[in-house]
Amino acid sequence: MGYAVEFGDVQAAAQRIAGTVKRTVVVSSEEVNDIAGREVLLKCENLQHVGAFKFRGATNAVRMLGRRQAEKGVCTHSSGNHAQALALAAKQRGIPAYIVMPNTAPKVKVAGVQSHDAEITFCEPTLEAREATAASVIERTGATLVHPYDNPNVIAGQGTAAMELFEQAGPMDAVIAPVGGGGLMSGTCITTRALFPETRLFGAEPEGADDAARSLAAGEYIPQTGPDTICDGLLTSLGQLTWPILRDHLEGVITVSDDEVVEAMRLLLKHLGMVVEPSGAASLAAVLRPEFRELEGIGKVGLILSGGNVDPGSVAF
Amino acid sequence: MGYAVEFGDVQAAAQRIAGTVKRTVVVSSEEVNDIAGREVLLKCENLQHVGAFKFRGATNAVRMLGRRQAEKGVCTHSSGNHAQALALAAKQRGIPAYIVMPNTAPKVKVAGVQSHDAEITFCEPTLEAREATAASVIERTGATLVHPYDNPNVIAGQGTAAMELFEQAGPMDAVIAPVGGGGLMSGTCITTRALFPETRLFGAEPEGADDAARSLAAGEYIPQTGPDTICDGLLTSLGQLTWPILRDHLEGVITVSDDEVVEAMRLLLKHLGMVVEPSGAASLAAVLRPEFRELEGIGKVGLILSGGNVDPGSVAF
Repeated sequence: MGYAVEFGDVQAAAQRIAGTVKRTVVVSSEEVNDIAGREVLLKCENLQHVGAFKFRGATNAVRMLGRRQAEKGVCTHSSGNHAQALALAAKQRGIPAYIVMPNTAPKVKVAGVQSHDAEITFCEPTLEAREATAASVIERTGATLVHPYDNPNVIAGQGTAAMELFEQAGPMDAVIAPVGGGGLMSGTCITTRALFPETRLFGAEPEGADDAARSLAAGEYIPQTGPDTICDGLLTSLGQLTWPILRDHLEGVITVSDDEVVEAMRLLLKHLGMVVEPSGAASLAAVLRPEFRELEGIGKVGLILSGGNVDPGSVAF
Repeated sequence: MGYAVEFGDVQAAAQRIAGTVKRTVVVSSEEVNDIAGREVLLKCENLQHVGAFKFRGATNAVRMLGRRQAEKGVCTHSSGNHAQALALAAKQRGIPAYIVMPNTAPKVKVAGVQSHDAEITFCEPTLEAREATAASVIERTGATLVHPYDNPNVIAGQGTAAMELFEQAGPMDAVIAPVGGGGLMSGTCITTRALFPETRLFGAEPEGADDAARSLAAGEYIPQTGPDTICDGLLTSLGQLTWPILRDHLEGVITVSDDEVVEAMRLLLKHLGMVVEPSGAASLAAVLRPEFRELEGIGKVGLILSGGNVDPGSVAF
């Protein structure tokens, strides 16, 4: 196939991170099912350590470093959840973490990174500034870059969430995950295709950062410029490793408005008592969109609620 | 049998309140199951309207009032959740609600009552003061007393929670509910005995307000004096109507310390992402007690998480 990750990598990651990464609960609600018109199974990665699935990929990547390489530490640039995840994974291995964050990152995520003793460098909120700042940190420290999504070990780790979803809730007619850089979606594609070739795969993306939807429609990689959405975890462009996987496996990418995301957050709080961050609620917003409702033959759909880190006061709901 | 409530009353209540009262979700978590050593099904009345099962009984009681009686309004004394529930049920019927609250009631519950336009009278936090204050309010207004638990219509309404639990999650080897005045536990007993005579019934009670445990051990009603626990919903004595039902149906009452309640609250937040109030978490604390763990033949246990109204800052967890 020639992809960066195969299902064997996901299986190995699952064994490598077992006991460290939480086996998060899968929940459902009759009210949500009624509203969606189908059975909706929610994999609660908002309850993962650091409040997001990112801890899966970060832990897998940190564990795969050789001893001498590991000693010099790890570095990344991230709007927040991967940063927190890498900081904690590094702390657990006893190695330094150097984190480059955009100066627009939610305070709750900055505080999370600080609490895991990582060294933070702030930069402008552009991909260029993030990459340049990370490069200078790496030159200074010799740390290893652990890219938030365009890294095979990270993608393999993220694929373990879907593995657990199937183990816990059985086969699905469709699976939906949010798409930012595409790490979670890529891992979800690799796992799902290997286990259930007929399960339909969809991405959920905010209207204000819809590079995956446009790329898929055009049949070629189109980078994201000027993203504008409350989904702070879904601002980035697809990666060189994630784009081919998404291109070949996704039936579609469903774009959702910020208002629809907030409505999905409200439903999750009301019916399941859970606070899910905007990026994490995008999958549920997608399920409620007319173009998804119209699809036939989907009785049971699995969603990955990707994160739960909401800045207090940042979203009125 | 001669009890204040029969299962037919619970069934009628379920039909009467359908569509108004939420059919709350039943959830479970592999981690909680592992910790408890059994399958634990949690009926989430913390997600009920006003954040507690109390809305079931209050709605049933308010709906059963005749028109002329209803016009003069309803009155109750309550530490909080029944007060909020009665205030909302009255508002929905368009009649006045007069609420007597102890001056120690959690602010979040006082705010809830105020938000439903009820008239609040504060009093000392003793049963005597509550009853005397309510009597004077009733003399002034002609309102009907809707006692928080010692009222057949309230008990019948509370029994609908267990009905839904069985409908949603099937038969159980055991069911546990928290015991304050015994309204929820009584309704749970009536429903469970009628549907599944062999299901074992247990109450959960704080060590600092263990009148049900002591009454059951003594074989006679012993009122609560000087309660001392963070479970603000479980301070009261059993009622004249609830005690005989508990006496005849409970296999035991498991008492839990405040520290164990806080630990149960932490587990619910960590593994299910839910904020449950101390009184609501008592059932889970009971499942984790040695005397419950030692019981054989209980593979599947249903718990009613009774409420979710926590004063911000009141519990450090």
